Amino acid sequence: MEAAVTEAAGSTGWDGLLVNARLVTLAGDAGYGAIEDGALGWRDGVLEYVGPAQALPADARAQAADVIDAGGDWVTPGLIDCHTHAVFAGDRAGEFEQRLQGASYEEIARNGGGIVSTVRATREAGEDELLAQSLPRARTLRDDGVTTLEIKSGYGLDFENERKMLRVARRIGEALGIGVRTTFLGAHALPPEYAGRADDYIAAVCEWLPALHREGLVDAVDAFCERIGFSLVQTRRVFEAARALGLPVKLHADQLSDGEGAALVAEFGGLSADHVEYTSPAGVAAMAKAGTVAVLLPGAFHVLRETKLPPLEEFRGHGVPMAVATDCNPGTSPLQSLRLAMSLACTHFRLTPEEALRGATVHAARALGLHDRGRLRPGQRADFVRWRIGQPAQLAYWLGGDLVTAVHVGGQAVR
Amino acid sequence: MEAAVTEAAGSTGWDGLLVNARLVTLAGDAGYGAIEDGALGWRDGVLEYVGPAQALPADARAQAADVIDAGGDWVTPGLIDCHTHAVFAGDRAGEFEQRLQGASYEEIARNGGGIVSTVRATREAGEDELLAQSLPRARTLRDDGVTTLEIKSGYGLDFENERKMLRVARRIGEALGIGVRTTFLGAHALPPEYAGRADDYIAAVCEWLPALHREGLVDAVDAFCERIGFSLVQTRRVFEAARALGLPVKLHADQLSDGEGAALVAEFGGLSADHVEYTSPAGVAAMAKAGTVAVLLPGAFHVLRETKLPPLEEFRGHGVPMAVATDCNPGTSPLQSLRLAMSLACTHFRLTPEEALRGATVHAARALGLHDRGRLRPGQRADFVRWRIGQPAQLAYWLGGDLVTAVHVGGQAVR
Ligand SMILES: [Zn+2]
Ligand SMILES: [Zn+2]
Repeated sequence: MEAAVTEAAGSTGWDGLLVNARLVTLAGDAGYGAIEDGALGWRDGVLEYVGPAQALPADARAQAADVIDAGGDWVTPGLIDCHTHAVFAGDRAGEFEQRLQGASYEEIARNGGGIVSTVRATREAGEDELLAQSLPRARTLRDDGVTTLEIKSGYGLDFENERKMLRVARRIGEALGIGVRTTFLGAHALPPEYAGRADDYIAAVCEWLPALHREGLVDAVDAFCERIGFSLVQTRRVFEAARALGLPVKLHADQLSDGEGAALVAEFGGLSADHVEYTSPAGVAAMAKAGTVAVLLPGAFHVLRETKLPPLEEFRGHGVPMAVATDCNPGTSPLQSLRLAMSLACTHFRLTPEEALRGATVHAARALGLHDRGRLRPGQRADFVRWRIGQPAQLAYWLGGDLVTAVHVGGQAVR
Repeated sequence: MEAAVTEAAGSTGWDGLLVNARLVTLAGDAGYGAIEDGALGWRDGVLEYVGPAQALPADARAQAADVIDAGGDWVTPGLIDCHTHAVFAGDRAGEFEQRLQGASYEEIARNGGGIVSTVRATREAGEDELLAQSLPRARTLRDDGVTTLEIKSGYGLDFENERKMLRVARRIGEALGIGVRTTFLGAHALPPEYAGRADDYIAAVCEWLPALHREGLVDAVDAFCERIGFSLVQTRRVFEAARALGLPVKLHADQLSDGEGAALVAEFGGLSADHVEYTSPAGVAAMAKAGTVAVLLPGAFHVLRETKLPPLEEFRGHGVPMAVATDCNPGTSPLQSLRLAMSLACTHFRLTPEEALRGATVHAARALGLHDRGRLRPGQRADFVRWRIGQPAQLAYWLGGDLVTAVHVGGQAVR
């Protein structure tokens, strides 16, 4: 057990006080930072007290507007899913089925499958319909502990439909009472109407960005840099457009081959390089220097039955923080639980349960450029989850299971 | 789409009528047996009508005591989890964590880990406490669509504690309103007090069986036949004790090596051989001849990161039915969703979504010796699940997700 992070607040008229809790603060650089018989006090959605119940000010219980007995539950920071494509219409279960019946990727593409089919369905759906189809997925993620959710565009691939996706993402945050961070991923795939004109498409993407940003729809900018995606040169153009607007960047990098994507996003001081199975030692070193987070996406690794592991020991050796996310998407990672991604990270990548939890909280916050969440610490948002488990390792140990007692965002219970 | 299974019932004063449903009947030997715009009618917990809504008798809606509009949901037979160890106390998340921190199996065993720790915790728990710890797992399985649940003993390893486990299994069925089938697995592991005296322990197991059977606690008998478990000769003794009582047998067979377990259980006309990764061609042929089901357990395969696939093509070629189950247990398969087992069966074993669904319904029923469930067909129990999905393949496609609208057992909604 680690030293507790305690801070006596000036006054104790808190909006909420949680007692009889076993806290996983993740306060230090390693370890759970556990506090048995702990308490949390918050005001205006921000934690003011995180520490042992015995050290609470004498009048804390009497003064708090609301006192919650956690019944001995373990309490962690709210989970943060820092890489999802959770807004889309349709699904690709038919394609999944055809593949298992022996169809090749080429046959599926010829039958109109693949990402193109999701683009078609997403374009055809009205904004309300797109919200209706996407909301249950986001709710399922929240109900399993996610209090901050990143959502990318990238199935619209034209101005109006990218805008529609980002608007739906914002509406999901309002509907569910959770934090949503939007990422503009216009450079996800080449839409059919730009076939053979990738450079022209990138020029269009760079034009849409300022308008979307003016509407407050863009928190970060991403691209799919891969032989089957966009080139380093094209990605650089997108990043320069983002930099001109002061927007942070992140990148789908080195998933299927070493495309030197990690080094590029690091060059731009990017928030994260995501997937990173094939990232080279030079790429890892560049990420370490730039403070770029490695976002591990074990769902896609699992579904695609990949065997090339990300350079985990190099990340550890260079102190590159490793986040874990669902990559929730209809093609390669139909995954609706961040805990399940944590479990897959342990099984496939041999992360420890503590690394997996830290990857879904502390490091995930950093991958989104957020400094106000990810740990239980005074001054952080009162985003936390109560779990009916006997020890923190159970979060990554169970495959499935309903372990959540309550989910709080800014102190408010949303589940 | 397959031909519909329809049977006009004599009178239509049904207890329940479900309309506006898309049925997955699994009526034939292959295919979903789908009926778009289908209806189900039942009386006394048994289906009397399964077919298109248009073919319903004219007065069916007026005469039914309860008419349910399924709102276009897909409806499948209730899922059947035919291999679980869901009753146990404690958990093994600590061991999972130690292993990922680099501890060897030997170190964990020296620290009191492994199955011995589950035996200790299960023995220490009173019956009510054991029920309280096990019930949430079974409820989670049910709420994801399981209407019949097999539960094995095997962590008591003495008469009183094996009896306690089997009693708890029965109480779970009553508490959740689902079917529970109990399997006596006294020959699961050698308890510490019998160290070096495996034959004596098997003699004791064979003595307990008639007494447990007299109490109505045993629906089938199982053993763990493996180099690290019990020998073929010891397993045969257990099976002979079962046969003397007219009890069907099943077997943990050929999981880590070809121990000729499948052939043995087939020799006894057993219900199923489970795991079966290393089963030989001769074993497969024996199973086919005896009508023994192969129960695939992809959860343990996944968690143990096994690479040896079961002989799937041989099973298909010989017409050996393949069931899929969670193997829910604290050591090698901490899996609380049968749909997740179906997904793992598709990803790891390349089953088609239809094979996975058939494995969790039709063939799972057979692995339990049950002929009254597993399909939607007149004369079968009215055990069915409503799913908010666009096509049946989604059941195995999503990893996680809350897809259930309602779970009906004998017509009654239990979720
Ligand atoms: Zn992605
Ligand atoms: Zn088992």
